[in-house]
Amino acid sequence: MKPINFVVVGFGGMGSYHARGLIGENQFVTTYGTYDSDEKRQAAAKEEGFKVYESFEAVLADDNVEAILVATPNDSHKQLVIDALRAGKHVVCEKPVMMSVADFDEVVNVAEEAGKVFMTHQNRRWDSDFLIIRDLYKSEEIGSLFQIESRVHGANGIPGDWRHLKAQGGGMLLDWGVHLLDQLLFMVDSPIKSVSADLSFVLGDDADDGFMSYIIFENGVRAHIEVGTSNFIKLPRWYVKGYQGTGVINDWDLSGELVLQRETDVKHEPTPIQAGQGLTKTMAPPSEEMTECRELPSVTAEFDSFYDNFYQVVREGAEAVVKNPEVRDCLVLIETIFKAAETGETIKMN
Amino acid sequence: MKPINFVVVGFGGMGSYHARGLIGENQFVTTYGTYDSDEKRQAAAKEEGFKVYESFEAVLADDNVEAILVATPNDSHKQLVIDALRAGKHVVCEKPVMMSVADFDEVVNVAEEAGKVFMTHQNRRWDSDFLIIRDLYKSEEIGSLFQIESRVHGANGIPGDWRHLKAQGGGMLLDWGVHLLDQLLFMVDSPIKSVSADLSFVLGDDADDGFMSYIIFENGVRAHIEVGTSNFIKLPRWYVKGYQGTGVINDWDLSGELVLQRETDVKHEPTPIQAGQGLTKTMAPPSEEMTECRELPSVTAEFDSFYDNFYQVVREGAEAVVKNPEVRDCLVLIETIFKAAETGETIKMN
Repeated sequence: MKPINFVVVGFGGMGSYHARGLIGENQFVTTYGTYDSDEKRQAAAKEEGFKVYESFEAVLADDNVEAILVATPNDSHKQLVIDALRAGKHVVCEKPVMMSVADFDEVVNVAEEAGKVFMTHQNRRWDSDFLIIRDLYKSEEIGSLFQIESRVHGANGIPGDWRHLKAQGGGMLLDWGVHLLDQLLFMVDSPIKSVSADLSFVLGDDADDGFMSYIIFENGVRAHIEVGTSNFIKLPRWYVKGYQGTGVINDWDLSGELVLQRETDVKHEPTPIQAGQGLTKTMAPPSEEMTECRELPSVTAEFDSFYDNFYQVVREGAEAVVKNPEVRDCLVLIETIFKAAETGETIKMN
Repeated sequence: MKPINFVVVGFGGMGSYHARGLIGENQFVTTYGTYDSDEKRQAAAKEEGFKVYESFEAVLADDNVEAILVATPNDSHKQLVIDALRAGKHVVCEKPVMMSVADFDEVVNVAEEAGKVFMTHQNRRWDSDFLIIRDLYKSEEIGSLFQIESRVHGANGIPGDWRHLKAQGGGMLLDWGVHLLDQLLFMVDSPIKSVSADLSFVLGDDADDGFMSYIIFENGVRAHIEVGTSNFIKLPRWYVKGYQGTGVINDWDLSGELVLQRETDVKHEPTPIQAGQGLTKTMAPPSEEMTECRELPSVTAEFDSFYDNFYQVVREGAEAVVKNPEVRDCLVLIETIFKAAETGETIKMN
């Protein structure tokens, strides 16, 4: 087994995380070197002991380099990826992979012409919280899921510099949104029927600092996907409803539970409660005999980890876990959300 | 002070609650008698010691009766209210007051012709949870509110009989929806810009068993209003975002809190956290120096209680707390939500 030699291009937060950990600690891939256009980041990489290339051209000219990891600001992905593919390198690119569907199609064509592998690092397909929800979707443990609410709430605004700027591909729809939407599409096996959406601009940037979207699938599933950066109290990371129960995952700590309707011969009516100025039976807690609490299932991915899979794809022609047509579908959805928010219309798909 | 003699028409759950408590215990109004078209409910009222009328006509013919409380199935409100007004009685009607804006306009005209008071019992304007949120909206304690999420979640389906049937005015949009939407309109002092909505039919009734709606106001406020009857785990009753903080009320027990951004000279950056497969600074908890927790404010209504106000309106020509044009606006919104859900379109108002 010969590990694949990677050069990490862009040694910022994500690039250095790949260089040290994701690539650095994986047996199938190696951080052969790094490159960043910023001198300070070059110095930082040197200090950490990485082999630092003096230019992007020097990276491409080195025959020992088999693959490039692109982790630069979003608007620079396209040219770097095309240049690397044409220089005969395989490419892994950080998300959001491209800023438009048109750009993505162009890059995929270049990869096909070059006969090189081009994969997007949609790493959150391996997040445990997501895998639990995907398992519930498949197992129907709380019945067929018909409502999926996926939220990520922060209170720090948008950190960093270029992530504030729309021209550089900033904004939360492209940042966290692309993760949540990719997870959704990787789970729900149905075409989308309609999309409505609303972007927020609380911070006063020209890029969105959060969004709400409501997606109805042809198979009846409803999804509420939301990112916020001015939420000083968090709503649960996941909230899902099935025909026999409800599931919640509070946070990445995986706390949460399932509450199911119990199969009973006798129907125990709930006791009405005083709710504000009125009595309500409808909104009273169900009687204890009628429900059952369960722990969340314990789940691991049934598919290889990202770089293990990348190795198999490159060396053995295996199928990619993150497939380009899937990544394209997600970009189409993102463009639809932008359009729905800008026009204030519900967009019907197909 | 001469209390107003009421006859409660419809001695079901709500009617008997009025007869015993809301009217029965208020010094300004009296439960003079009751009437129900169902013999069993007539017997129940007799057993509780109420004077029971043998027919609706007998109620209207009695000159001692000054006012009628209508708490019958929704599709029967219109004729009962019109007959009572024409017989010279004042009328309080349970919500949803009418099944259409057209019906409401007709009834208001009859009330004006008759010179009688006609008020809708939108009692949840006095709910403490709502009054707290309305106070936050006015006081701007967490900054100007720009996002208001109001949810009522139950897990008992729709109880009772006629509430399942669309023809009788069943369904959750007309039942709980009318409360949540009335509260919203009583709080946000702005015209509505657009409405999108989705009804749920989980139970297989022809009436909706819940709904989601997303309402954008001209002043920029966004509202997510939701009712669910198959939610085995509840999301908070209220979740609101202001420019300086977030507020949550969990339930009618009024548990909850405010979390505010603290004014500081030095900006304390959050520490990135491991979140699933990635690191995130954006979604890390803010550093403790940057936020401040506060208890929810303690609030009472600055306006009279419903029946105190009704008395003032009838005897002294005071202004109604629940004004007919407001009730009409709420019915317009409900019709818009039905239309948005049926067409799958975002409806632009004005």
